[in-house]
Amino acid sequence: MTVAGHAALCRGLVEPVGLVTERAEFASAGLAPLESLVFGGHEVRGGPLREMADGVLRDCGMPGLATAVGDALDEYDARIAPGVVRGGGRQIEAMGTGRLEVGSDAEAAAIVRADLDAFKKRCKVDRLVVVNVASTEPPAVRHPSWSDLDTLRVAIRGPEVVLPPSALYAYAAFEGGDAYVNFTPSVGSRIPALGQLAEERGAIHAGADGKTGETLVKSVLAELFARRQLRVLSWFGQNILGNEDGRVLEDPENKATKVRSKDHLLAKILGYPPESKVGIDYVRSLGEWKVAWDHIHFEGFLGQRMSMQFTWKGCDSVLAAPLVLDLVRLVDLAQRRGERGVAVALAPFFKDPMGTCEQRLVHQDETLVEWLSAPTSS
Amino acid sequence: MTVAGHAALCRGLVEPVGLVTERAEFASAGLAPLESLVFGGHEVRGGPLREMADGVLRDCGMPGLATAVGDALDEYDARIAPGVVRGGGRQIEAMGTGRLEVGSDAEAAAIVRADLDAFKKRCKVDRLVVVNVASTEPPAVRHPSWSDLDTLRVAIRGPEVVLPPSALYAYAAFEGGDAYVNFTPSVGSRIPALGQLAEERGAIHAGADGKTGETLVKSVLAELFARRQLRVLSWFGQNILGNEDGRVLEDPENKATKVRSKDHLLAKILGYPPESKVGIDYVRSLGEWKVAWDHIHFEGFLGQRMSMQFTWKGCDSVLAAPLVLDLVRLVDLAQRRGERGVAVALAPFFKDPMGTCEQRLVHQDETLVEWLSAPTSS
Amino acid sequence: MTVAGHAALCRGLVEPVGLVTERAEFASAGLAPLESLVFGGHEVRGGPLREMADGVLRDCGMPGLATAVGDALDEYDARIAPGVVRGGGRQIEAMGTGRLEVGSDAEAAAIVRADLDAFKKRCKVDRLVVVNVASTEPPAVRHPSWSDLDTLRVAIRGPEVVLPPSALYAYAAFEGGDAYVNFTPSVGSRIPALGQLAEERGAIHAGADGKTGETLVKSVLAELFARRQLRVLSWFGQNILGNEDGRVLEDPENKATKVRSKDHLLAKILGYPPESKVGIDYVRSLGEWKVAWDHIHFEGFLGQRMSMQFTWKGCDSVLAAPLVLDLVRLVDLAQRRGERGVAVALAPFFKDPMGTCEQRLVHQDETLVEWLSAPTSS
Amino acid sequence: MTVAGHAALCRGLVEPVGLVTERAEFASAGLAPLESLVFGGHEVRGGPLREMADGVLRDCGMPGLATAVGDALDEYDARIAPGVVRGGGRQIEAMGTGRLEVGSDAEAAAIVRADLDAFKKRCKVDRLVVVNVASTEPPAVRHPSWSDLDTLRVAIRGPEVVLPPSALYAYAAFEGGDAYVNFTPSVGSRIPALGQLAEERGAIHAGADGKTGETLVKSVLAELFARRQLRVLSWFGQNILGNEDGRVLEDPENKATKVRSKDHLLAKILGYPPESKVGIDYVRSLGEWKVAWDHIHFEGFLGQRMSMQFTWKGCDSVLAAPLVLDLVRLVDLAQRRGERGVAVALAPFFKDPMGTCEQRLVHQDETLVEWLSAPTSS
Repeated sequence: MTVAGHAALCRGLVEPVGLVTERAEFASAGLAPLESLVFGGHEVRGGPLREMADGVLRDCGMPGLATAVGDALDEYDARIAPGVVRGGGRQIEAMGTGRLEVGSDAEAAAIVRADLDAFKKRCKVDRLVVVNVASTEPPAVRHPSWSDLDTLRVAIRGPEVVLPPSALYAYAAFEGGDAYVNFTPSVGSRIPALGQLAEERGAIHAGADGKTGETLVKSVLAELFARRQLRVLSWFGQNILGNEDGRVLEDPENKATKVRSKDHLLAKILGYPPESKVGIDYVRSLGEWKVAWDHIHFEGFLGQRMSMQFTWKGCDSVLAAPLVLDLVRLVDLAQRRGERGVAVALAPFFKDPMGTCEQRLVHQDETLVEWLSAPTSS
Repeated sequence: MTVAGHAALCRGLVEPVGLVTERAEFASAGLAPLESLVFGGHEVRGGPLREMADGVLRDCGMPGLATAVGDALDEYDARIAPGVVRGGGRQIEAMGTGRLEVGSDAEAAAIVRADLDAFKKRCKVDRLVVVNVASTEPPAVRHPSWSDLDTLRVAIRGPEVVLPPSALYAYAAFEGGDAYVNFTPSVGSRIPALGQLAEERGAIHAGADGKTGETLVKSVLAELFARRQLRVLSWFGQNILGNEDGRVLEDPENKATKVRSKDHLLAKILGYPPESKVGIDYVRSLGEWKVAWDHIHFEGFLGQRMSMQFTWKGCDSVLAAPLVLDLVRLVDLAQRRGERGVAVALAPFFKDPMGTCEQRLVHQDETLVEWLSAPTSS
Repeated sequence: MTVAGHAALCRGLVEPVGLVTERAEFASAGLAPLESLVFGGHEVRGGPLREMADGVLRDCGMPGLATAVGDALDEYDARIAPGVVRGGGRQIEAMGTGRLEVGSDAEAAAIVRADLDAFKKRCKVDRLVVVNVASTEPPAVRHPSWSDLDTLRVAIRGPEVVLPPSALYAYAAFEGGDAYVNFTPSVGSRIPALGQLAEERGAIHAGADGKTGETLVKSVLAELFARRQLRVLSWFGQNILGNEDGRVLEDPENKATKVRSKDHLLAKILGYPPESKVGIDYVRSLGEWKVAWDHIHFEGFLGQRMSMQFTWKGCDSVLAAPLVLDLVRLVDLAQRRGERGVAVALAPFFKDPMGTCEQRLVHQDETLVEWLSAPTSS
Repeated sequence: MTVAGHAALCRGLVEPVGLVTERAEFASAGLAPLESLVFGGHEVRGGPLREMADGVLRDCGMPGLATAVGDALDEYDARIAPGVVRGGGRQIEAMGTGRLEVGSDAEAAAIVRADLDAFKKRCKVDRLVVVNVASTEPPAVRHPSWSDLDTLRVAIRGPEVVLPPSALYAYAAFEGGDAYVNFTPSVGSRIPALGQLAEERGAIHAGADGKTGETLVKSVLAELFARRQLRVLSWFGQNILGNEDGRVLEDPENKATKVRSKDHLLAKILGYPPESKVGIDYVRSLGEWKVAWDHIHFEGFLGQRMSMQFTWKGCDSVLAAPLVLDLVRLVDLAQRRGERGVAVALAPFFKDPMGTCEQRLVHQDETLVEWLSAPTSS
């Protein structure tokens, strides 16, 4: 979707709706033009991209688009390498075309690193941003070696799975000084040893878990209750979705990671933890669509109990794709500014932002805009 | 409701939920303690307050409260003077117990001013804030004398209705240097000549139209679409409510004022005017409850059309009452700080804030908090 | 949409979803095969059908369909005659391409009758059903001549507009013994003199106002409250829609007819009239989509007040089109069975069924199924 | 709630809203007057009834009622015996005040039977109906002895738990020829051996699982889709509730029974099984209130996908209580008519009706009304 959308944008087939970096405030920040971006990737599912994109785009009600940018999809296809799945949980491992057979994480990382270098050379790109948009992994079990880079380097040479795929790609990216963005709730680069590696190599990273739907709404709406001193008694959210991500989340082990990521921002914004629950269920018939229903029960003056409900009906990939373009452009800018480590200013894009406790969209976004215009302070 | 709630708060019967000025940030601003406030008023409807309050509180599911604070209501009752209704539109004029028979606006203003002075003397209060919480008037027709204070002073001596009630009270308040807050969409003090009068007498004023429900939600939610560059195609809002205000709004002439006040903030926040409509209908069975349904149709990446809906179910008077307490305390602080004219910092309380174009709740609120801690800059 | 859908069905491009007459109970009733139907029509808007259909189908998310059945649409185009608009209200009259210039209703009826005869001859069809699917007319003012056929025949020879277009087509159809179905809330054949004419010529008629969305839901849902003795206090419905019909309904004179048709069935089903309102607003961005929000406030045991809300999001033309096919097949069957006058059994298709007070969908449908299997009793 | 409501009804404090048996059609059926009913019960929770009722009634917004009928509640209190909990699952067993210590099911049944006889004698009632309104038990594991009465009689003399509480009460009721109604999804009398016992002793039984909220809506709404040949692709329902029943349902073993009972009627009504899920979550802040959100995704003509959503906000006990009164009166009538075994005509009251596959509320209700007026055919 990101690749198809990028091609459609570059050809002027669509307007840049949904791209944060196309807002007026971003115009003079020196971001790389969209046309200068080149895409490659790792994929664990089989089949030509044009077909997969066509399915998704049809579901989203845009059947003609895959054809209109078919050549761009085919070109991209040629730049895809098979992905690593070991440690990704039974759902992801079962997808099959991934490379499970390597003997150690170090070997797997070396293969990925070689893929990245080959891509950079072949496409003649100067800088590279690895973006994790894979399905959610089960909650990672903290490995003792995670706390220190040297220990980690030893551990990954053994046969044990030390780094789940999301972290392995971060390792591979950092090794070459490249940036890594974690658009999923999987652990990614949130491992101290990987943080050390990023600093050491001058690599940028950001994450985690793209904020695209229900949580996005929460991160503005909760302010209303906070600023009006209305006491949230309970906030119940239920998501139903029908795409591949939804299917993977059917597995309780993957769902656990996701629900954890969605459920902590209320306490941060409100200043107290209300009763809250987030449910996610797979409803196949919805295809690419996601519907969220939230019921907010709150107390006002004199103890009066009132309620608000909302439903959000969005096409998940359509909401996420432009943010990936935004993130790549912003991380690239940070790279060119000589920053290293966590790109804290990218918080508005994430459910679980690294390097900050700020969960309020408006504040996150204002901070991002300030960062844009104040290049020297990272 | 405000009076009953104030009494309940002072007696410790309820917690200060729903009061903005009870948030931690407001603790050291030097606001008057709630216990120091004394209430009086003008009323156009008949009947003892205890009975009216009991009806409203029962509707809101708090049947015991009117009894618990009955003595405070009775005391307040003794401080009520009959209200002026001439120029309030056929709905308000029909309420009957108001004073229509005065010969000129000047006479009416003098009567109100005398009531205010009597109240101050009797209750031994130093400062006074007149808050307009009457039903919405029809859209006021601009009178030629409004543009200049001297001209206005002449005009109101004639038999013509020059100032609708909402403006007449502002005039009377300012004449004695007292403050005026317009909690309704009626014209109130938004008349140049009244602005001159306030400046001349060192009076504070603020308004207009308390932001309590659907518009409050809009003023946070619209930011989501603005900051994510999601294009709002249409925003349709429908309100149903069953109280006296709803009944008055049944009349198209009063409804026009209200709908105008609710419908302009989207363009301000989004930066472009989306297709939008706001409906208000009276549904008697709802009593004090108001239900709003909003349907937001928006476009994302690749032209994909998506939607969000929300319903807000609140008790209107319960949402408004604590804000009246907040406004009185904040205006009083401004008075003590020696400010005069429009209290711009009070924007977060209003649908149509005077003195600023800022419609975003979060920004309005941050400005208020800054004002609190920076007393010398008004 | 009906013509395009019919072609798509006959070519096996789509399944017969949404067609009542394709339910198992209807299989052995001797209905005409879909393939045997031929379509013609009168149209007041300009432009080739293929283009108009393409616009509608795109809006509904079916962009390929107009092309797939383009030849059928072109053929149909050749069978379209310009429509009569005089008396249709300012919105419809403004559409322009209609024939306004005839000197009398009798002349207009003769032209329409000639069109129908030409169509029957040219397409070699034995029986014909005229279906009114035009935009809603303003409420018709009862003309004195309506009560008697002979008087009507005299009146329509004068220059006055006696019959609005919806009734004029019924007149023309009946004159030739052909059937007439009123899918709109306009007056159509609900004029005593037209009833006499239908009986006299052995013509069938049915109506009025296709039951496709919010009212359809009401006609099943209200039974819940009736059968459980739950007291409906208020039922508020709000419809927003973006197509041509919606635009015409913007005009208060056309809206009045529609709202009247939607708002009377609750009293019939519940046995008492609850407080109720139905709003219709035009929201252009919705295109062919209609969204209805209903709020039902009801009282249960011990006076407890509870509520139900629903939203219905449907594509109006997609919901209506198959019902037109159903109605044509069923009226045709009634014709072959030798029935005449109002086809009472067709009540389930209409918001305001002729010949019966029954508003409950389930009962209406059971009656229809009984009628199917009991051919001799009309 | 039932007892309090009954007292309030008998004293004329409230109108008989929500009682099916107070509809006009039931007036001449010879039902026992409400005043003639006397209540007793078994309870596994401690505390005086007046207090428990007060809590529930406050939650429902009826704080005065418990006081108004306090004496009736106190009288009832004196007729409460401690309940049996063994075999009710860990949640119910933990409630503590129940009698766990009996040596065998036979002993437990004998104690219950003795309680029933004592109640009948003391209150001088001729006929008795045991109604199970306890919290939902975990799914019962079928015991080999269930298929035959003689085997069952032997089995329950051993130390093993053979009958969960819901079935044990049925056994005890039938032993004395008394009726049993299962208002819960627990197994109750749906055990072949118990069916034999009821027939043998001439006892009536009915069940299972009171149809009060979301499922009630489904049982009318699904007809719309069936009769219009609209294809339901998925029907997702989510319930949130805050009372004791909700807390018990938090336990997955109890929830399994409930979800099973709610999820099978769609296939029956539609004629095919759509994708469907029903979720139940405990949200403490809701107290006695239950909110259900259902999302129905359906396909219409030309494959167009549309959707309907509803939210139902009801007070569970307020919806259930009058149905218990209805059931007692109707079962009593069946007893007096000399019927025995399953009272099939009572299907409209249940999610999972015994003795019939009919799930459509309208048909169930029509059958009940027919049964009323045709006493001799059971």
